[in-house]
Amino acid sequence: MNPASIISYARGDEPVDLLLKNARVVNVLSGEIDETDVAIVRTRIAGLGDYEAKETIDLQGAYLSPGFIDAHVHVESAMVPPSEFARAVVPLGTTTVITDPHEIANVLGLDGIRFMFESAKHGPLSMFVMASSCVPATHMETSGATLRWYDLVSLKSDPWVIGLAEVMNFPGVVAGEDEVLDKLRTFSDLVIDGHCPALSGKALQAYVAAGIMSDHECTTVAEAQEKLRLGMTIFIREATNAHNLKPLLPLVTPFNHHRICLCTDDRQPADLLDQGHIDFMVRTAIEEGIDPMIAIRMATWNTAQYFRLADRGAITPGRRADLIAFDDLKAPRPHRVWRGGRLVARDGEICVARKEVTPRTLRGTMNVDWNAVDLTVIAEGRRMRTIGVIPDQLVTENLVLDAPRRNGHVVADPSQDVLKIAVIERHMASGAVGKGFVRGIGLKSGALASSVAHDHHNLVVAGADDVSMMTAARRSAALGGGMVVAQGETVLAEVPLPLGGLMSTEPIEEVRRQLDGAIKIAHELGTTLHDPFMAMSFLGLEVIPSLKLTDQGLVDVDKFAPVSLWAE
Amino acid sequence: MNPASIISYARGDEPVDLLLKNARVVNVLSGEIDETDVAIVRTRIAGLGDYEAKETIDLQGAYLSPGFIDAHVHVESAMVPPSEFARAVVPLGTTTVITDPHEIANVLGLDGIRFMFESAKHGPLSMFVMASSCVPATHMETSGATLRWYDLVSLKSDPWVIGLAEVMNFPGVVAGEDEVLDKLRTFSDLVIDGHCPALSGKALQAYVAAGIMSDHECTTVAEAQEKLRLGMTIFIREATNAHNLKPLLPLVTPFNHHRICLCTDDRQPADLLDQGHIDFMVRTAIEEGIDPMIAIRMATWNTAQYFRLADRGAITPGRRADLIAFDDLKAPRPHRVWRGGRLVARDGEICVARKEVTPRTLRGTMNVDWNAVDLTVIAEGRRMRTIGVIPDQLVTENLVLDAPRRNGHVVADPSQDVLKIAVIERHMASGAVGKGFVRGIGLKSGALASSVAHDHHNLVVAGADDVSMMTAARRSAALGGGMVVAQGETVLAEVPLPLGGLMSTEPIEEVRRQLDGAIKIAHELGTTLHDPFMAMSFLGLEVIPSLKLTDQGLVDVDKFAPVSLWAE
Repeated sequence: MNPASIISYARGDEPVDLLLKNARVVNVLSGEIDETDVAIVRTRIAGLGDYEAKETIDLQGAYLSPGFIDAHVHVESAMVPPSEFARAVVPLGTTTVITDPHEIANVLGLDGIRFMFESAKHGPLSMFVMASSCVPATHMETSGATLRWYDLVSLKSDPWVIGLAEVMNFPGVVAGEDEVLDKLRTFSDLVIDGHCPALSGKALQAYVAAGIMSDHECTTVAEAQEKLRLGMTIFIREATNAHNLKPLLPLVTPFNHHRICLCTDDRQPADLLDQGHIDFMVRTAIEEGIDPMIAIRMATWNTAQYFRLADRGAITPGRRADLIAFDDLKAPRPHRVWRGGRLVARDGEICVARKEVTPRTLRGTMNVDWNAVDLTVIAEGRRMRTIGVIPDQLVTENLVLDAPRRNGHVVADPSQDVLKIAVIERHMASGAVGKGFVRGIGLKSGALASSVAHDHHNLVVAGADDVSMMTAARRSAALGGGMVVAQGETVLAEVPLPLGGLMSTEPIEEVRRQLDGAIKIAHELGTTLHDPFMAMSFLGLEVIPSLKLTDQGLVDVDKFAPVSLWAE
Repeated sequence: MNPASIISYARGDEPVDLLLKNARVVNVLSGEIDETDVAIVRTRIAGLGDYEAKETIDLQGAYLSPGFIDAHVHVESAMVPPSEFARAVVPLGTTTVITDPHEIANVLGLDGIRFMFESAKHGPLSMFVMASSCVPATHMETSGATLRWYDLVSLKSDPWVIGLAEVMNFPGVVAGEDEVLDKLRTFSDLVIDGHCPALSGKALQAYVAAGIMSDHECTTVAEAQEKLRLGMTIFIREATNAHNLKPLLPLVTPFNHHRICLCTDDRQPADLLDQGHIDFMVRTAIEEGIDPMIAIRMATWNTAQYFRLADRGAITPGRRADLIAFDDLKAPRPHRVWRGGRLVARDGEICVARKEVTPRTLRGTMNVDWNAVDLTVIAEGRRMRTIGVIPDQLVTENLVLDAPRRNGHVVADPSQDVLKIAVIERHMASGAVGKGFVRGIGLKSGALASSVAHDHHNLVVAGADDVSMMTAARRSAALGGGMVVAQGETVLAEVPLPLGGLMSTEPIEEVRRQLDGAIKIAHELGTTLHDPFMAMSFLGLEVIPSLKLTDQGLVDVDKFAPVSLWAE
């Protein structure tokens, strides 16, 4: 929309479309609450104050703030596509998200990213995309796509693509590797997000010098302070599997607060539905003693500024009418949400029709040559490297255990909590299967399979016996992807994820119900993990220490090298 | 410079070019003073901390801050070209200025702007240009050029052009006039500066809605607060003829300080040499109680952010090594200035060779058809409109006085402090001469002429008799422009300004000496004004109330219309 077209309305010469009367406007620029009315023309704010309007809504003194902005989120972690994700987060006050679609990109490359755009289009949520910088994560896995700089450059002409997503290959940046520097060069005129957990000192300075502008991986105030001092914008994260908000809030000062944004990174359906989204972070920050004005600002203006989104983040003439109304400044729970001047949610319910999703819009992605898949492990040694799961952590232990044998094969031994685990390549039916063993999942019988396995998203399956494992794995493939619990030849529970093997076509509430159900069955089979599927989804991620498994086999992450199953 | 090329230095693997040891680094991001060393490679900061270096300078605990940035300045007001302006301000710690070259643009159009680039090139100061939006100021004058949107668009491809300069035609914006909206549209992807003195309420909202982002014309805290609330960045100005700094400092709060920048707008040589530049504003702000960290930040980071200059404004890896060292945080007076890693000033003296300026680089601009110039005024009425000068103000009174007559002509009458004033068109020798009378200059005899007359910069001359006036005016033209004091047929003093009739080829110290000398002679001739040339330079500016004179004749600014000399 051409801003010039609202000048006459701002002047007050023509009646505006909508007037929100008796608002307490949260002014994130001045830090004040202004008791006034807000005039809207089409998608934009025309002015503040008394205006003649075609339609008037009396807010009766409710607070009105800019819509919340999530600075960094992988929508796929909610296990639903953007259209459905919007249904979940828009009623919570989120009107804009900046997403890195690197889960779907690892499966379907640029086609996957385009699917995300398509799904978000004409919906109630503005979804900006940062081009995924690290697809695949490393060379020690088989992903469904490889995105190099010359693939990513084509995204730059899309107005919804605003930068380069988290550059997770921080060792490559610090080492000055061409592959990643080419990507930085390609996006040097846009925003470049970082991802550098615990990086410090001169290595961190090299990373910053390369042009990387933000980080969302800080876990301590000291880490965040070092990064902020060096010029990085800090995204404080509160994910399902990473709780950094409370520990990082002491970072915020009157001097630096405008350099800090809020993000969720990865949030599962249950957390979105039970706790919330950015609104949950804002409320928690305020509970912890942050001035509400600063908390709201970190969720709105700061993020808009960092991402150079000049059209949003504050309630001022000419900006988008992305607005939320709530009654309690100390615990904002939006009862009305407008996006671009249109009421899109009310009292926690979305006001726009649900967009049906059909898997036909995406290619099938479960491409497995089952004739080549053999889960047996020949006993070629005595002691074997075993992945040790640590509850609620993404890092694992690199254990060495005696190999349980039967008929010349190594087998799972649930009595010692040793399960077999396999990662079955599922993108190009190569027949590659990585095999290993894992302690800490706790199944007494049966198997769990999932097509969600960061970042390559091959088919990961763990179980007490090969029959259960094959049942679970085959069922996941037959569903077009998903999470499955099986025992023997029986499927006990399933969460179909036919969209790239990552996302469901069902409403998010149904996905949550299915997942809760599957986890309950898994608990009945003996697992002691809070969410065994989430734990499994990180057992294949060979960039997080210490021992991980990809379709290429075991990886000693501390040595950043493939390693044999056999320790001796 | 490609940031990637400094990664190996930031890592510490290769010795850097320069290490500034034992610095107290002013961290404008965290608000802290960091005691550390700063490593520089070529033009950039490689890192902070202990580095091996080819050259080391021990700062012995001096403070080190980013170089100051002037958010809005008309270099021409210093009466010297950019190369010489740099000599004056760089030793004061200014390493970057954002300039609107609208004085020279009114004389020479795009050629004038290109001259400014040429003069700044390879100098010790980064000069960014905002494309002049209002050339000419109105249709009631003859300027040397007209710049429409299709003229300005060609500037956008220059990397030193970063936006559209102060949109002074705020009535045109509020009224939605195509001419100015075309310019806003042309620059909508860049920064657009405003200029809207005392604009308020819905008219201000319309101006903001049109996409205008800043204002530097505020005179009261209330005015600035209204603008800041609506989303404008506030530039606090301390000009030779507008002292807004002290009145506006109470605007600054911990919440809003990052939305406030410092600018000088127009500063004459004497003020630059005696008081200083942005450094003077920083010191004054601190004296007035502003936290030094906030004062320095308003002079560095905030301005870089507003203008999207991601390569400067803070001392962090990858950013430009534009640095200043000083000993007293409460009164910063830089004793060393580096620009792009190069020492450019030390102890108040520039370290780079002076660039000679020759007027040959610009066309002659004093194009007057003297045969057509006739200063006589036929007595066609009894009472005449007379410009009333108010000391130290740009606004004038619209007086009506009895016309002093002699032989059927109206003449100056110094005994009543009524002087004749003429504005002689000097761009295209049209012969146009606006004639009128003025009270308040105070000359008892002789005349003053100047080719500096905002914004059209025609030749303005005021005096006690026509002979003195013609002597002064002709001498100004013969000099290629300049300020002249004459009595009868004798030239008593002059300040040659052969560069567009606005700027000297001499060092700024010499210009100041010449101007002081001319003002002294003018005082001897009876003027009571502090600086009669500055007062005269605004008597032709038909956008400031109440009665002004252009080459087209008198203008009643309150009615925004030409008006006859004769009141009855």
